[in-house]
Amino acid sequence: MKAFAPEVYRDRIRRVVDELRRQRMAGAVIGAGPELAYLTGSWVSSHERLTALCLSAEGAARLVVPATDAGGIDVAGVEIVGWRDGDDAHAMAASALGEGAQRGPVGLGSSLTADHVLRLQELLPETTLAARALAGVFAVKDALEIEQIGAAADAIDAVHARVPGLLRPGRTEEEVALDIERLILSGHDAVDFVIVGSGPNGANPHHSRSGRVLREGDPVVVDIGGSFGAGYHSDCTRTYQVAGPADPEFTQAYAVLQRAQQAAVEAAAPGMTAGALDAVARRIIAEAGYGDYFTHRTGHGLGLSLHEEPFIVAGSDVELREGMVFSIEPGIYLPERWGMRIEDIVVLEGSGARRLNRAPRGLR
Amino acid sequence: MKAFAPEVYRDRIRRVVDELRRQRMAGAVIGAGPELAYLTGSWVSSHERLTALCLSAEGAARLVVPATDAGGIDVAGVEIVGWRDGDDAHAMAASALGEGAQRGPVGLGSSLTADHVLRLQELLPETTLAARALAGVFAVKDALEIEQIGAAADAIDAVHARVPGLLRPGRTEEEVALDIERLILSGHDAVDFVIVGSGPNGANPHHSRSGRVLREGDPVVVDIGGSFGAGYHSDCTRTYQVAGPADPEFTQAYAVLQRAQQAAVEAAAPGMTAGALDAVARRIIAEAGYGDYFTHRTGHGLGLSLHEEPFIVAGSDVELREGMVFSIEPGIYLPERWGMRIEDIVVLEGSGARRLNRAPRGLR
Repeated sequence: MKAFAPEVYRDRIRRVVDELRRQRMAGAVIGAGPELAYLTGSWVSSHERLTALCLSAEGAARLVVPATDAGGIDVAGVEIVGWRDGDDAHAMAASALGEGAQRGPVGLGSSLTADHVLRLQELLPETTLAARALAGVFAVKDALEIEQIGAAADAIDAVHARVPGLLRPGRTEEEVALDIERLILSGHDAVDFVIVGSGPNGANPHHSRSGRVLREGDPVVVDIGGSFGAGYHSDCTRTYQVAGPADPEFTQAYAVLQRAQQAAVEAAAPGMTAGALDAVARRIIAEAGYGDYFTHRTGHGLGLSLHEEPFIVAGSDVELREGMVFSIEPGIYLPERWGMRIEDIVVLEGSGARRLNRAPRGLR
Repeated sequence: MKAFAPEVYRDRIRRVVDELRRQRMAGAVIGAGPELAYLTGSWVSSHERLTALCLSAEGAARLVVPATDAGGIDVAGVEIVGWRDGDDAHAMAASALGEGAQRGPVGLGSSLTADHVLRLQELLPETTLAARALAGVFAVKDALEIEQIGAAADAIDAVHARVPGLLRPGRTEEEVALDIERLILSGHDAVDFVIVGSGPNGANPHHSRSGRVLREGDPVVVDIGGSFGAGYHSDCTRTYQVAGPADPEFTQAYAVLQRAQQAAVEAAAPGMTAGALDAVARRIIAEAGYGDYFTHRTGHGLGLSLHEEPFIVAGSDVELREGMVFSIEPGIYLPERWGMRIEDIVVLEGSGARRLNRAPRGLR
């Protein structure tokens, strides 16, 4: 993964520290994962061994990391604290936060696992979620990030352009998926996932792929994505139909779905809640009688994580803001018959949502 | 991933519940990951959406899972509790534990992330690590597991048998790694990692691969592994030398390393601590003057996780027991020059350690 310039990370850390102060938090401990990559450019992963960026509200920034991993890390303004086997890495993290951490809540990064969380809690009088201070900064993308997410979207659109040629009767989902993986790699750094759900398999939104053979007229849900640049993701779903006779209800429902997706894209605007946006797509699908068959949320934020705030989900009062990037992906799933989903990544601008995916949305 | 028969999981859950009682714990909440796969056979992964096996000391077993993922899951004796957007999944998990959970410590699975941990802690009066009850069961492998880990070891040995033919001067680490990935896939279900560290890159134990071109006489550290069967791993390192003139110190140090690895394999026995075993390899390397250049622990447990207890690390008082499976992988790393590591997976039997990897350990 290629990191941005050092000042990008210095600025991000500064904004998080400002936010810690504003929220009267004493500090934050950010474990390996997307939040750490956002703040340092490093995707270091140490499995069960603690890697943690320790930020104090006073402004100190120290990265506690296994000494064996410390070599490749160089972050402007961040002191590297390497630990070796036998050291108490959690105690080092607690003391890297400074004495202030004993006097106020310390935010824990969401990727820290229970083994680290419980040990840190023994050393800190009060913990909370770092997301309180981080979420606003993390969820609102800057121009550099939008450029990379846009380039990733272009790359996945180019894959979708090739999919119709792969969906021939007699081929298996598995065969199609392997072809798609190769195509993703030609424009991305890594494949994140490839879902090919044909016929009744399309009715399971979490189906991956199988040995099922494509038949004439089969609807096929193709949901694919990869990683790109500094670690940003693409994620785009199109529903295809293998050449052949269509189930008339499928064609009818697809028109409803397309209308619901379009309406949600048009409705999205800064200031509305994520829950209100979910309701836009859901109402159209429900009014057409498919409410019980739209079984998942309308979308999710996307950046260095494949799923992050804002989640476009019923009941969410998260306010959508300019610069947020998220998916709009309603679906309709008739068990044992077929499924359909249309998914675009959009970026919220002052005037509304701008689609980053431009692959045709009509049934092909 | 192919799961074992239902009674295998029923039996594992029963043993963990027995252990909860013995440790006076009220219950356990196990999140998606290796621990959940161990207890249910399911590798369901719901990202930020809670999936949790809730075990009460009274014997109730319920799997709280997004309704969209619940379809494919069927575990003998485990009640499935599906949740939908808008439901409070954490409250459902807390109540799935029953009232007893309000009266004693509840163990949290180590893969649960901070966002889940902190929400569960708001609902439960006392939390601890589930590993307290789980570790003994999880770390001691039964015959079915040892059979699969052994088959994975055979498959990775077969890859190492082909590596010497791939290490020709003029090729890049990247090219070699891609060939190795293909070979791994021919005997495994997935590639976990491929490290090809040539020349000075070998001195970084966490190097992955690069565009560096192999030169005559280069030492090359090749550390590779994949997933197999129900989700078990292989993990085996050999150090090679590209045909050509050798650095005499490299050849000398390699003899020390081989002696250290052999001594640790011979010393391993039920009843000794993991720390004592680490010391066996470390002493031999230190006595030869390379103590400062053996910068990591001697090994780690391996099963459904690639790294798990027992960690063979200085200071560990974890007692090694019959049926434990772990790596023995000392290394010597001279910065800017070269690195070397020899790694075998061993299973501890009554009479001592039995190597599961049989690829030749001499310098090739």
